[in-house]
Amino acid sequence: MNSAELVKQIEQKRSFLCVGLDSDLSLIPRKFRQEKDPIFAFNQAVIDATHTYAVAYKPNIAFYEAMGPRGWESLQKTMEYIPKDIFTIADAKRGDIGNTALKYAQTFFDPASSGLNFDSITVAPYMGRDSVEPFLTYHDKWVILLALTSNVGSHDFQMTKSEDYMPLYERVMRTAMSWGSPEHLMFVIGATRSDFLQKVREIAPDNFFLVPGVGAQGGSLEDVAKYAMNSNVGLLVNSSRGIIYAGDDTSVSAAREAKKIQEEMDRYLDEYRK
Amino acid sequence: MNSAELVKQIEQKRSFLCVGLDSDLSLIPRKFRQEKDPIFAFNQAVIDATHTYAVAYKPNIAFYEAMGPRGWESLQKTMEYIPKDIFTIADAKRGDIGNTALKYAQTFFDPASSGLNFDSITVAPYMGRDSVEPFLTYHDKWVILLALTSNVGSHDFQMTKSEDYMPLYERVMRTAMSWGSPEHLMFVIGATRSDFLQKVREIAPDNFFLVPGVGAQGGSLEDVAKYAMNSNVGLLVNSSRGIIYAGDDTSVSAAREAKKIQEEMDRYLDEYRK
Repeated sequence: MNSAELVKQIEQKRSFLCVGLDSDLSLIPRKFRQEKDPIFAFNQAVIDATHTYAVAYKPNIAFYEAMGPRGWESLQKTMEYIPKDIFTIADAKRGDIGNTALKYAQTFFDPASSGLNFDSITVAPYMGRDSVEPFLTYHDKWVILLALTSNVGSHDFQMTKSEDYMPLYERVMRTAMSWGSPEHLMFVIGATRSDFLQKVREIAPDNFFLVPGVGAQGGSLEDVAKYAMNSNVGLLVNSSRGIIYAGDDTSVSAAREAKKIQEEMDRYLDEYRK
Repeated sequence: MNSAELVKQIEQKRSFLCVGLDSDLSLIPRKFRQEKDPIFAFNQAVIDATHTYAVAYKPNIAFYEAMGPRGWESLQKTMEYIPKDIFTIADAKRGDIGNTALKYAQTFFDPASSGLNFDSITVAPYMGRDSVEPFLTYHDKWVILLALTSNVGSHDFQMTKSEDYMPLYERVMRTAMSWGSPEHLMFVIGATRSDFLQKVREIAPDNFFLVPGVGAQGGSLEDVAKYAMNSNVGLLVNSSRGIIYAGDDTSVSAAREAKKIQEEMDRYLDEYRK
């Protein structure tokens, strides 16, 4: 999917909501556990309930890997079930040297390889350029690079200032922007503080940001819209647990929570799109 | 496996060789491609040929993931086939926030979860403490943290000096050493320059280092032994392509190349163990 298609979908749905499919056998409602493939059955219910409000789905790969081969099968079936006009994110946070990065790119981008055909993948920047570039060679596919994450540990290294007083997350963003255009490169930006949101939008005026940390992790959606929206919207805001585990009757509760966020986003699109 | 058992095995085999199982359908000898599970058949041949010379096996997870569910099945079978006294490394370079890191830990450490039971996993440090700690809670399991890698891109961020002139890889090592003891924490150190090898051993005198980049990637084994061996040996040196793809008759060629490296290591254990 290219950015024009993504923006068009955002405009049609009046939403920049990404639903995180962190589907965990021990947390899904009991009734799904009797199904042959409980995770897929649960994901179907979530997708049915939310696809009119969401513009993206983001399975966190750890939850599928942890179940071994049958987890990968649930993931394949889920990917086939997601409507084709919705953007998909493999939240995999991979990062390895060139020939291995190419294998990871095949895994998530090349259906002939693993059966998966994601639009994008999250990638860790620690190993530098040659660990990111293999993902950027795919047409209409995206790298979503970790920049400033929303967890406590983000302070350990991401905030470290270098000799020229530039924090590491900023160096990662500025360096990566020379590797790929805003047509292929998004950043993961943890939504916690308004001053950081302003700063990262200043650093990368045209890139999309994937923003976790709204909802269960505690960020304010209005701050994200107010300080980081650009003329292309430029935002995908994720909610996982707050939507998918909102109640035992998933069809009702997930729809209700997704709609609530979509309606808020609708207002912010009027108010803050520059 | 604990460090005493690992060191004992190194002493018995007079080797600190790790064989990288980067098994790729397009690179393995033609005869294996006719097997029902070509990757597993190839890995069996490599393991049969090298297990008397190697103290560790390191499947790079990307190569298995790229094949979808059947790749994970090949990986499971390979893990079951590796002799129980040999150290195993999931070269996965994972790294995510707490509850997701826990899922990744289950994937690779908890056989009841995914069917896999690795001794260790490689982890990326970018997201900080809470992305690493869940792996450290497992008894007799190890985190092998990316510190200084061997690829060109390692210069992009790992070498960046902070306000106090400490390069990022050093900050990663010193910070991580407060999270876990040398009984649970190793570092990935790319074997390229002798001055760096001396430096990292100075920073972490007691930790094991996993050293890729000897062989196909071009480092000198003697330099690694000379500058980074400690009283516990403290080294696992990996070779992948140089061993597993050394010839069409894998049983002969992999054994020959592994033996060659083991004999060199035998000499260095006499010469450089402090």
